[in-house]
Amino acid sequence: MIQPKASSVLTNLFSPFQIMDDSSPRPVRSMFAWLVGASQVLGLASVVLTGVWMGHYRGGFAWNGSAQEFNLHPLCMVLGLVFLHGDAILVYRVFRNEAKRNVKLLHGIIHLLALIISIIGFLAVFDFHKAAKFPDMYSLHSWCGMATIVLFCLQWVMGLLFFLFPVASSGLRASYLPIHVFCGLVLLVMAIGSSLLGITEKLLFSIMPTYSLFDPEGVLANILGIVLVCFGVLLGYLITREDYRRPPNPEEESLSVHFKTLIEGGSPTRP
Amino acid sequence: MIQPKASSVLTNLFSPFQIMDDSSPRPVRSMFAWLVGASQVLGLASVVLTGVWMGHYRGGFAWNGSAQEFNLHPLCMVLGLVFLHGDAILVYRVFRNEAKRNVKLLHGIIHLLALIISIIGFLAVFDFHKAAKFPDMYSLHSWCGMATIVLFCLQWVMGLLFFLFPVASSGLRASYLPIHVFCGLVLLVMAIGSSLLGITEKLLFSIMPTYSLFDPEGVLANILGIVLVCFGVLLGYLITREDYRRPPNPEEESLSVHFKTLIEGGSPTRP
Repeated sequence: MIQPKASSVLTNLFSPFQIMDDSSPRPVRSMFAWLVGASQVLGLASVVLTGVWMGHYRGGFAWNGSAQEFNLHPLCMVLGLVFLHGDAILVYRVFRNEAKRNVKLLHGIIHLLALIISIIGFLAVFDFHKAAKFPDMYSLHSWCGMATIVLFCLQWVMGLLFFLFPVASSGLRASYLPIHVFCGLVLLVMAIGSSLLGITEKLLFSIMPTYSLFDPEGVLANILGIVLVCFGVLLGYLITREDYRRPPNPEEESLSVHFKTLIEGGSPTRP
Repeated sequence: MIQPKASSVLTNLFSPFQIMDDSSPRPVRSMFAWLVGASQVLGLASVVLTGVWMGHYRGGFAWNGSAQEFNLHPLCMVLGLVFLHGDAILVYRVFRNEAKRNVKLLHGIIHLLALIISIIGFLAVFDFHKAAKFPDMYSLHSWCGMATIVLFCLQWVMGLLFFLFPVASSGLRASYLPIHVFCGLVLLVMAIGSSLLGITEKLLFSIMPTYSLFDPEGVLANILGIVLVCFGVLLGYLITREDYRRPPNPEEESLSVHFKTLIEGGSPTRP
């Protein structure tokens, strides 16, 4: 029976520079650690820049139907649908040598957190629009953003059914896995694209007369956009590069290790 | 000496439904053909929608420093940096069983066409801004768009040096190839993202008061944005799916078949 190595997963959470398999060549390990570090700096920078933009230039945060409630929308979306979403995908590379069920659980938990935060951000903008009697769902940002969040929810439910509480046969799961992985990356790109559209929309609604004069608010928001693009490119590289992939483990696959065995503590060979 | 099969490349250009290796399973071949067909419909639709938007709603095209000159910018960018750029990448999947040097040549030619059209589109907007005394390079669209076109030029020159007129060693070329492939896909995504930002900017500059009333121009431009996203997703799927990859051909690789041998008709084993 395989025991979950939860403690080592948690230890590794705080030691990203010692995460690669010792059998990997040293330059590959070292480069991977630097790139993961850089991705985290970019991801956190995007959240901080959004917070500064909304907090300093747009009057801060509240939940009272005012523009301050709207300000929660960009912050929650960048935090949930971009940063946490990206990191939830990245755990499969960072913890590539940990037991798959632990990594899967961590992936699901971070995604749940991303989903909750995104839904708060989603509600914030609709609540603000309702209070201010602003129309909904007419802009390209709203169309792309709505498509992203609906598909993100669908992807989360499908992931839950297929991989955490596997109701599908192992053959079906194996067929769905590459689609799940592809859709995860597409949704991250769509979330970043929607964020850039939101930045442009917000700037043109708020500071159109001074935007072309390199207003500091505009420059800050543009930099936020570029940081989001760099985060996406780095995540894309880390996720798709062959050297960084989780090594196949036929034994683990054949044991069909999944959430059920983890929570019940039963034999992983149980169907 | 391997003879280029230019005629079969050209024949296949017009028969995308008979393009997969006969050894591929029938459902894989059939699905691939449908997806390639769908990608072409979406790509052409995006060009047509941009043409209709600029031609019908924005007064058509000219090269005289007027708003009609600006109208060439979106059309050229969608045609060059999105549709042709995407198709230049796709040729490696569509002609996966053709001689590599022919496909490489076709890839380079389509990219050259994409580059020329993109540069015309790039000049159109700067020329219009200059004539109208509009400021340049302050918006997120301009920052993302400029980064995309500069990196696209760099990628084209690097591709030319590494693969069409290989000046680098075969080891260096092999190391650079996955980076070239990754950057090609990133640039396609950046081109689509920049286009979406351009759509949003243009709509908010032109029809802000009526955009929220579902003005037909706004709806058409939003649909264009969604079509561009779908084109990108489909291209991404076709390019990254394992079944559709070009099968490795060690003999071809060892012969180091490149442009020089094609144009000189010499032995492909010549360095």
